[in-house]
Amino acid sequence: MAKRLVPLLNRVLVERIVPPSKTTTGILLPEKSAKLNSGKVVAVGPGTRDKEGSFIPATVKEGDTVLLPEYGGTEVKLGDKEYYLYRDEDILGTLHD
Amino acid sequence: MAKRLVPLLNRVLVERIVPPSKTTTGILLPEKSAKLNSGKVVAVGPGTRDKEGSFIPATVKEGDTVLLPEYGGTEVKLGDKEYYLYRDEDILGTLHD
Amino acid sequence: MAKRLVPLLNRVLVERIVPPSKTTTGILLPEKSAKLNSGKVVAVGPGTRDKEGSFIPATVKEGDTVLLPEYGGTEVKLGDKEYYLYRDEDILGTLHD
Amino acid sequence: MAKRLVPLLNRVLVERIVPPSKTTTGILLPEKSAKLNSGKVVAVGPGTRDKEGSFIPATVKEGDTVLLPEYGGTEVKLGDKEYYLYRDEDILGTLHD
Amino acid sequence: MAKRLVPLLNRVLVERIVPPSKTTTGILLPEKSAKLNSGKVVAVGPGTRDKEGSFIPATVKEGDTVLLPEYGGTEVKLGDKEYYLYRDEDILGTLHD
Amino acid sequence: MAKRLVPLLNRVLVERIVPPSKTTTGILLPEKSAKLNSGKVVAVGPGTRDKEGSFIPATVKEGDTVLLPEYGGTEVKLGDKEYYLYRDEDILGTLHD
Amino acid sequence: MAKRLVPLLNRVLVERIVPPSKTTTGILLPEKSAKLNSGKVVAVGPGTRDKEGSFIPATVKEGDTVLLPEYGGTEVKLGDKEYYLYRDEDILGTLHD
Repeated sequence: MAKRLVPLLNRVLVERIVPPSKTTTGILLPEKSAKLNSGKVVAVGPGTRDKEGSFIPATVKEGDTVLLPEYGGTEVKLGDKEYYLYRDEDILGTLHD
Repeated sequence: MAKRLVPLLNRVLVERIVPPSKTTTGILLPEKSAKLNSGKVVAVGPGTRDKEGSFIPATVKEGDTVLLPEYGGTEVKLGDKEYYLYRDEDILGTLHD
Repeated sequence: MAKRLVPLLNRVLVERIVPPSKTTTGILLPEKSAKLNSGKVVAVGPGTRDKEGSFIPATVKEGDTVLLPEYGGTEVKLGDKEYYLYRDEDILGTLHD
Repeated sequence: MAKRLVPLLNRVLVERIVPPSKTTTGILLPEKSAKLNSGKVVAVGPGTRDKEGSFIPATVKEGDTVLLPEYGGTEVKLGDKEYYLYRDEDILGTLHD
Repeated sequence: MAKRLVPLLNRVLVERIVPPSKTTTGILLPEKSAKLNSGKVVAVGPGTRDKEGSFIPATVKEGDTVLLPEYGGTEVKLGDKEYYLYRDEDILGTLHD
Repeated sequence: MAKRLVPLLNRVLVERIVPPSKTTTGILLPEKSAKLNSGKVVAVGPGTRDKEGSFIPATVKEGDTVLLPEYGGTEVKLGDKEYYLYRDEDILGTLHD
Repeated sequence: MAKRLVPLLNRVLVERIVPPSKTTTGILLPEKSAKLNSGKVVAVGPGTRDKEGSFIPATVKEGDTVLLPEYGGTEVKLGDKEYYLYRDEDILGTLHD
């Protein structure tokens, strides 16, 4: 059973971050508090190809925390873990503290 | 919880300007008086990519007051603040006094 | 309240010319007499971008009297004046006496 | 009231030729006799733009008699005359005796 | 009344070949015998334009017998003759004995 | 009556191979046994045009046995023989023993 | 009967990997356990063509284990074996232990 996926072209493999329902001190967070559709970049493809066929690298890199679009994303199950494949140009931005 | 978003490619993060319902001296403004759909640019992505992959910078910059299109814009909640992501080429113009 | 709009890219800000319903000597013009959908160019954006990102200037300039397409145009209210934003390539031609 | 229109880009201003219903000697032409949708070129825009922004001239010129497509054409009334605006690439051909 | 049409761009003027219903010796041809939708090229436009505006000549030339697509073709009546205008790239091939 | 067709641009003339219903030794082949939609290349056009107008040759050549797509193909009857015209880029692959 | 298919352009011939319903030690795998839509690359076309007509090689190669998209793929039966043709750019990634 395959454990690792190397995305092709400008695809990006992301592990979704499930927003905590409680604060670190255990207080229940209100249902409607800001829920960011975000994730961690696990693997990145070589990028898109220019006219001569060389690769233009993706704009995100492994380890980035990224803001994901509301729709899209192809579900990929590797072993018992769930990931999602996005196209680099569909990822909205990188998130920072 | 992420506090800051760096937009990717030619995306622009905007904080909407809510038009005042009263004048500075407290007089109620008529409902139909000119309501500009405008906002303040908070962050700008690196721009679009040309054929070789280098970035062509966006046409607006941080701090600009901009006229927004009637439709579009992706809502992004960071902490308790509400922002909107637009594509640079969808922003109509910059507003000046 | 913003008073001035600088259009972005190849957008053109136009003030519509309302055709007179009477001749200069006060005679009522027939309803169906030629009503040109025209306007005065008030401001012009830097133009469209070529592949390297430099601007290709618009074909019309401030002060031109232009023939407008039947449809399109984004309404923009600045103070108590009404303008319309068109794309340069949608403007049909320049009008001359 | 504007009298003259200078078309923009590759637009062509045409005055339609109304086919005669009688021969020069006054004989009524049969209804279904060949009715060419043709016109006289009155004004031509500078042409389309290439990637650097310079103009590629239109293929027709002022004074040409042209065969018009069945559909399309934007009606333009200048004074009491009626014209039609076509895109250069939509004009089918030039007519010669 | 115009007698001659010079097609514009990559348009090709064709006179349709009506397949004979009898053999040369007068024998009636079966209804379903091969009916080729073919024609004779009467006039050819200068061709399509490349990025700089120069013409890339059409692939067919005056006098060619060509196989026409099942659909398309703009009818043009010049005097009492009937022609059809095709785009060069829509013509399927040239026919030879 | 034309006997030979020279395809234009990247069109390819193919004679379909009708799969045998019996083996060479006369045994009836099961109905659902693999039926490849294949054919023999009879003639190939000069290819597609690059930006300057020169031809980029087709990827198949006369005599190739090719795997055809499930749909598409324009029927052409030349004399009493039946052929099909395909675009070079729609042909799936070449078949070899 | 053709035994071998050489894909054209950027097509990739894949033999699907049917996920085992039991572990190697014979234990039945739960129905909903991760079922990867994967396959083995059997043959790869020369790739896509750049503007001059030379080939830009595909991103996968013979022998790769690949993650396939949920939809698409053209079924091809060669002898008694079943394969699927995909376009190189539709294959999601390569799988590794």
